[in-house]
Amino acid sequence: MEFLSGVKEKETWELSALLAEDAAGRMVKTNGAVHAVRDMGSVAFVMLRKREGLLQCVLEKSETGISAKDFKEGQTLEACGVMQKNEKACGGMEMLLREVKILSQPAEAMPIPVSKWKMNISLETNLDMRPISLRNLRERAKFKIQEGVVRGFREFLSAQGFTEIHTPKIGAKGAEGGANIFKLEYFHRPAVLQQSPQFYKQMMVGVFDRVFETAPVFRAEKHNTKRHLNEYTSLDFEMGYIDGFEDIMAMETGVLQNIMRLLEEQYGKELALLEVTLPKTEQIPCVRFDEAKRLAAEKYDRPIRNPYDLEPEEEILISRYFKEEYDADFVFVTHYPSKKRPFYAMDDPSDKTFTLSFDCLFRGMEITTGGQRIHDYKMLLEKIAARGMTEEGMDAYLMAFKHGMPPHGGLGIGLERLTMKLIGEDNVRETTLFPRDMSRLEP
Amino acid sequence: MEFLSGVKEKETWELSALLAEDAAGRMVKTNGAVHAVRDMGSVAFVMLRKREGLLQCVLEKSETGISAKDFKEGQTLEACGVMQKNEKACGGMEMLLREVKILSQPAEAMPIPVSKWKMNISLETNLDMRPISLRNLRERAKFKIQEGVVRGFREFLSAQGFTEIHTPKIGAKGAEGGANIFKLEYFHRPAVLQQSPQFYKQMMVGVFDRVFETAPVFRAEKHNTKRHLNEYTSLDFEMGYIDGFEDIMAMETGVLQNIMRLLEEQYGKELALLEVTLPKTEQIPCVRFDEAKRLAAEKYDRPIRNPYDLEPEEEILISRYFKEEYDADFVFVTHYPSKKRPFYAMDDPSDKTFTLSFDCLFRGMEITTGGQRIHDYKMLLEKIAARGMTEEGMDAYLMAFKHGMPPHGGLGIGLERLTMKLIGEDNVRETTLFPRDMSRLEP
Repeated sequence: MEFLSGVKEKETWELSALLAEDAAGRMVKTNGAVHAVRDMGSVAFVMLRKREGLLQCVLEKSETGISAKDFKEGQTLEACGVMQKNEKACGGMEMLLREVKILSQPAEAMPIPVSKWKMNISLETNLDMRPISLRNLRERAKFKIQEGVVRGFREFLSAQGFTEIHTPKIGAKGAEGGANIFKLEYFHRPAVLQQSPQFYKQMMVGVFDRVFETAPVFRAEKHNTKRHLNEYTSLDFEMGYIDGFEDIMAMETGVLQNIMRLLEEQYGKELALLEVTLPKTEQIPCVRFDEAKRLAAEKYDRPIRNPYDLEPEEEILISRYFKEEYDADFVFVTHYPSKKRPFYAMDDPSDKTFTLSFDCLFRGMEITTGGQRIHDYKMLLEKIAARGMTEEGMDAYLMAFKHGMPPHGGLGIGLERLTMKLIGEDNVRETTLFPRDMSRLEP
Repeated sequence: MEFLSGVKEKETWELSALLAEDAAGRMVKTNGAVHAVRDMGSVAFVMLRKREGLLQCVLEKSETGISAKDFKEGQTLEACGVMQKNEKACGGMEMLLREVKILSQPAEAMPIPVSKWKMNISLETNLDMRPISLRNLRERAKFKIQEGVVRGFREFLSAQGFTEIHTPKIGAKGAEGGANIFKLEYFHRPAVLQQSPQFYKQMMVGVFDRVFETAPVFRAEKHNTKRHLNEYTSLDFEMGYIDGFEDIMAMETGVLQNIMRLLEEQYGKELALLEVTLPKTEQIPCVRFDEAKRLAAEKYDRPIRNPYDLEPEEEILISRYFKEEYDADFVFVTHYPSKKRPFYAMDDPSDKTFTLSFDCLFRGMEITTGGQRIHDYKMLLEKIAARGMTEEGMDAYLMAFKHGMPPHGGLGIGLERLTMKLIGEDNVRETTLFPRDMSRLEP
């Protein structure tokens, strides 16, 4: 009988080992994809793409039986050679090729310049050709940074006593209701795709006190803008026993600080590749909705058109104001008008036309919506009635409150938007592996 | 201007601090939900449910103005009191109540015995009342263990150089095709919910070499059994540059070892609560599909009815065989027949009626399906043609192969099934927060 006892060490070296000082002079084996080939005549350079970056391989034609013509972009191969220092090579080391074994051959030549620093292709082409356009090092780096954002979110909340949950995406009714909801047939019954884990994460506060989820959400919004997706990854948390909605903003501040620390410590290569300057998170200013509107209107001489909502341009101006006045990259805008918030938002007891809620703006764009929720059963029923809504389909949600819920609140962060603003992109599709919008359902 | 600078320490103590040796004799503050009240006459016990467990609070009526009648199951409150040692209390410490502030009141009495060790309610009732039935300590513990499983999966793969990805759940076409697929309308176009991230994770092997995803998958299977869900959380990984499909099983072995290590180190309380004995993962036996069928048939005198598939009963017998003969809790069954595997499975070059694929059985049930995939473009086209399938809608998937893909493979682990077998449940709904099956769409 054969047995497996875990991961065995491979003969092939990873890039960090190859580029280490003490690799110089050693004959080693590695593998990777041919990223680019430069034939200089007597010598050729084969750039090998590995998961940690590029390895420069040098082919001295006189010394081996290998020909530069044997290499093609998109091949994958196993290479043996001697490592040697070369200040001009990326990482300061290169491999003198001795032996090459082709693992797989591409069937056609690469149709886009994947190996270029910038591909100079349209976003449409980039998205259409995602399986290969992402092989570009800068494209790939965006999603390593995205990975770091998610890790930073989860790690911080786990350390703060949050439990990770997995809630269903198919349901009988959406959390927020409304028209922006995808419908499907579920074994001959009508069903919907969840717009957010809102109801579920609130119910779970009654069980675990603090919960988070990192999962897809689905919104059938008919907005085809640079900031909208119809499916995106939402970083959600919900916490009980809060003293006020400031606790939620304080927790988000901690999350953001941890994300930036993690990126700085472990994703330096990707940050450098994309020339990213990490935002300041030590202190995040906090301003009331009406005050923020007034400050931006006054400083930038722009009339307030809608006192109940922030227009995208106002978000930009408020962010600009706080950058100029306080050198702040993030700003919490608090006390949104009650009529623009969902029924479960806690109204401000001192003025019920406003709520104990907030958005977090980052470099001109809303990346988070959060706030305190109603936790009292009767208050919740009254709010539902006052809105002319029905309790139908909310039995389970209301059950949690009927049997006692602590004061609580939470938020949702749009992962793709946060990544987009972090790396300075201006279209949320740039930071989505496979975006879904009104016209894009593939790849 | 107000600023937020991160999470502030709270006055209220968490359970681990309350139960520490040096808390004895100290006057402290905490909060929680009233889990149970036992009025003994001159003294009453209030069990406070906190996220880490229970705190016994003692109310000596003569000493405070508080009455036992003030407490109700489901209340949430803030309590001040003096910690004292009591060997009989859970955790060896209790709080002598001095002051109590009610944070929220339940509107109705608890309809199920949430505070009992075992609730003795039907699974149907349990699932219907999920928001409160999960407040039972044993119910809650199942999902803490589930959290540990996911953490163990992610942590191990991150350390092994895998990148976490987020792929779309709405698409134009399913990865595996077939009838078991939920359909929806996407802005007047037909769309489907993904049955698995298969195509996407394979495409991303060409970008990151190694990827994983922990996300929901959707299967419109008309099986209403104890082992089927129509939406579940799939733990997927895919890895390039493999030497053979044994590399994938070795990686899963490492994942399972890490999960068990993490559970043992950090989830001891929950394991004890549910009386879980962790399975052995040091060495996992590996047996060919046809050999496994033969061994089970011979030892348990059961005729082989279908040589191309494993019946659930055969999975049970194969697991039993390896438990009895090798004291193994997991077993890899390899070389499944080609006709029962999807088109992208790599056939065994030595006998093309079998594939380089495997299932992992755990205590009688399949929890993983995996294997090596075809990486050669022409071979993939030939297989698609041989199956009478169409390439339509697979442009992006095929594009990855056209431009070169390394030898690769991967697997998907059903999170709920793994958790179920780990804690000894016999219905996968027991280890799903909010299950979706043919008849259940709520809560």
